[in-house]
This record gives sequence, structure tokens and C-alpha cells, in this order.
Amino acid sequence: MTQYVRYRSDAGARWGILEDQRVREILGVPFASHSETGKSRPRGDLELLSPCEPGKIIAVGRNYRSHLGNRVEPKNPEIFFKPLSSLQDPGGPIVIPPEATDVHYEGELVLVMGRRAKDLSREEAPAAILGATCGNDVTDRNWQYGENKDVQWWRAKGSDTFAPVGPVLSTGLDYGNLRLETRLNGETVQKERTADFIFDCATVVSWVSRWVTLLPGDLIFTGTPGATRRLSPGDVVEVEIEGIGVLRNPVVCGASPPPYGSTRL
Amino acid sequence: MTQYVRYRSDAGARWGILEDQRVREILGVPFASHSETGKSRPRGDLELLSPCEPGKIIAVGRNYRSHLGNRVEPKNPEIFFKPLSSLQDPGGPIVIPPEATDVHYEGELVLVMGRRAKDLSREEAPAAILGATCGNDVTDRNWQYGENKDVQWWRAKGSDTFAPVGPVLSTGLDYGNLRLETRLNGETVQKERTADFIFDCATVVSWVSRWVTLLPGDLIFTGTPGATRRLSPGDVVEVEIEGIGVLRNPVVCGASPPPYGSTRL
Repeated sequence: MTQYVRYRSDAGARWGILEDQRVREILGVPFASHSETGKSRPRGDLELLSPCEPGKIIAVGRNYRSHLGNRVEPKNPEIFFKPLSSLQDPGGPIVIPPEATDVHYEGELVLVMGRRAKDLSREEAPAAILGATCGNDVTDRNWQYGENKDVQWWRAKGSDTFAPVGPVLSTGLDYGNLRLETRLNGETVQKERTADFIFDCATVVSWVSRWVTLLPGDLIFTGTPGATRRLSPGDVVEVEIEGIGVLRNPVVCGASPPPYGSTRL
Repeated sequence: MTQYVRYRSDAGARWGILEDQRVREILGVPFASHSETGKSRPRGDLELLSPCEPGKIIAVGRNYRSHLGNRVEPKNPEIFFKPLSSLQDPGGPIVIPPEATDVHYEGELVLVMGRRAKDLSREEAPAAILGATCGNDVTDRNWQYGENKDVQWWRAKGSDTFAPVGPVLSTGLDYGNLRLETRLNGETVQKERTADFIFDCATVVSWVSRWVTLLPGDLIFTGTPGATRRLSPGDVVEVEIEGIGVLRNPVVCGASPPPYGSTRL
């Protein structure tokens, strides 16, 4: 298992390998050949960034029975897109946007693609996955299902800061059997194993790749288990996944900070 | 008015300015400062690429009364996302994907953003638009509304090659009063002026920018007028917009070509 981190430096965003609380700088990216520079720094000195610069963000809805409520179990993975502008770094704020009235956390395992994937079988799919990180598929339930429902989930799932991911990209995990736990202000509010997926990671990657080509660095949010609750300014949400770590984001209200992309290093 | 084109060269993708059927090479991109190199070539010698490398593709549904059918006129712009992997170059094939049974053209005006846009008013929005191109928001009606309907329009609107754009990026047009015409095998099948938009370009940009930050190069498909028809392998679709030109794409069936991104120059 290798844990990669992406962090801010004076010379722009850098990738490194995290081990024993130190980060060893690399040249290149985890998706391609890379080498260590020999420099290292304590993790605590670094401001971590989203551990990826994806070309797209894909997400799966309704992928745990415990989250279905009275909805029918899907026959196929139910896919949607989140825009790159919704990405947020570990530690960065989840901003409750204007007119949002019912913004919820959704703790999720997020796959990071390592190779181009088109028309892959279930058997071929695992080799195209490089690793995984923690994600929060932040969602406004009113825009998704309520009185002010949009035709598509663009604001509900795609508002700025609605896709925090991190803190590390871990390779070599058994993605289908990890403990996932979400905490709201320290209280455990979601707890399930990814073994409970309705569609496992190989099935999701294979399914998407029949129609939408996946490229190295693309992210796939794999769905959230159980119930979710409304977030309020001042809250802190943590998504912890075995073998990855804790993604922690505070919740704020007001003008959005510059999103991912406009501040790209 | 300036017409920019993006084209393939031995040294990678290049931008140029099209005038009198010649393309004058530029250094830089239309979204930022750029200068002419002094070299030029006949347009006919060049393989044109999608006239943009967007960070995201936004689209508006139900934006002409003539396309509503028995659906209610929306109170606000109805937005959705198409993935970058759905981009297709002018002249490139629209590929009917596996299991698709009812793939339609949708000729549309596509805006190209020139500046970062967040929380813009209707009055501020026009200055953030750099220009426009022709687009085809290719859609499978069965996955969108039929028996095999997905929860979200990911395959319906996001399959590989479902977003042809081009051939040029034209600046300085009156985006709200252009003639749009779609031809299927030479027969005119959509014809309307953008003056008939339910939500004009400034309103759409302002609306989106309240929740989703727009960045230079981002594309906005502005909706399709009138009726659409099913495409079959062997068809040729043309979308022509006054001041821009003709986007022409053949329709094929079978294995997809490498999509945008995997072939990025």
C-alpha cells in the first residue's frame, strides 16, 4: 500500500508519498512514472490539497440498501456527474450556498482511476483503479427532491465546495471491504462496510466505461450508506475510511471561497 | 468580430485566427493575452478540433417554447452537466453507443466563457462571455424519458461523442439574436432564432454563477428549439449558426473512437 498526498508549495502543487508522518516529495504524478527527489517534510507542516486533479467526477446514487428508504433498489448503477468546480480540499470549508435550505453530508469511498477505461469487463475493471480516498458528496435535499426540485441535480450535488475529497490517495486496498464512518461534530452518524455496496467497484467501473470513457485521475464517488442529516454553519464533518484516514471539513455560510480551478497552483 | 479555430499540428494543438479562409497562427489562447506568430495556412489544409478545452460543460434544458411539448415552462433555467469525455471535434463521428435505441440531434448555440464568473448579476454576465460556437447536445430519449430511463441523464446526454462543438469560436456576436438551423442529411429540421430563448444568455450565466463558478473556456449549451428526430448510422447532421458557421458530424455505430482527453495534443 502506498499513500500519496498532494500539497501546496511555493513552487505550485506537489505530490508526495506519506509514510510515518513524513512526506517524501516526488517528481511526476501517481498515475504515471514518477521518482523521489530525496526531499521530505513532516506532514504537519504541509497544507494538503485534494489528492487528485480529475478530468471529471462521477458519482453513484442509491448504492447501499441502508440508504434506499422507500426507493426501489436500482437494476443498474445510477450515475451522475459533479463539476470540477465542486471539489474542495481536505480542511477546506463546505459552503452553504444562497437559497440552500437542506444541505446534507454523504460520506463515501471515492475511487481514483489510474488508466484509461473504455468498455472494460468486470474482470478487467480492478486493474484500471489506482486507489481510493474519502469523499463527501454534499447534497441539498430540497433541490434534489423537495418543493424547489430542479429537473437535474446540478445545484443539489454540484454547488461550489460540494465535493470535498482527501486527505490521501491510498493504493492497494480491498475497496470492497473497508469500514466507512462519518462523524458530525464528533458523533458517529454513518457507519457501514463497503462490503454492503449494491454494485461493487468493479461493476460500477465496468458499467460507466461502456458509455463514458474514464481517464487517469477521474474520480468515482461510490455512494453513501444509511441516513444523513442537515448541516449547519459551525458544524464539522469527518469521513473516515480504513486505510485512508480522516477527511475533515468545517461548514460555513456565506460567500464562497475561490473554488478548485481558479486557484489551481 | 474575431473567429478563432483550434487545429491539429505536428507540435500539438494550435490556436489561430480565421480570416478570408486563411488561419493565422497565434501563441497563447483566446482567453488570455496572445500574439500572432506571422505564420498562416489555408483553412482547408487544417484538421479543426473542438474550439475549446473546457474545464466543464454546462447545458440548459427546455429553453425554447417550441421544444417544450406538453412540459411546463420552467421557472428558472434547468441546468445539467455533460462530461468532457463527451466532446467531439467538428467532422468527428457521433457514435451510437451500445444499447442506445433513440439517439436524437439537438442543435444549439454554445457559449464559451472568457472569465471567471461567480455571483454575477444579469448586467455583469455578458462581459464574462468570450464568444460562441455551434453545438449538438446529442441525447438518447429512451435513457432520458423512456422505459430504460436512468435517474439522471448521464448516459442520455453524456455518452462519448455526445457533445460535438465547432467549427469556430466567434466573438462579438449578438448571442440573443442569431439564426440557428439544423439539417439532417441536407433537410432543414430545426430553424429558429435565439431571440426565442426562454432565458437569455445573461440570465443563464448569472443563474449558474450563483452556485457553480464558471471558468475561462467553460462551455454552456443554451438549449435546443423545436422538434428532434432519431439519428441512424450513415446520417450527417449539420448545425449552422449565423456568424459562426456549420458544425457537421457523421453518425456511426460501433466501437467509439478515443474521446477527447485521451487524444489531447
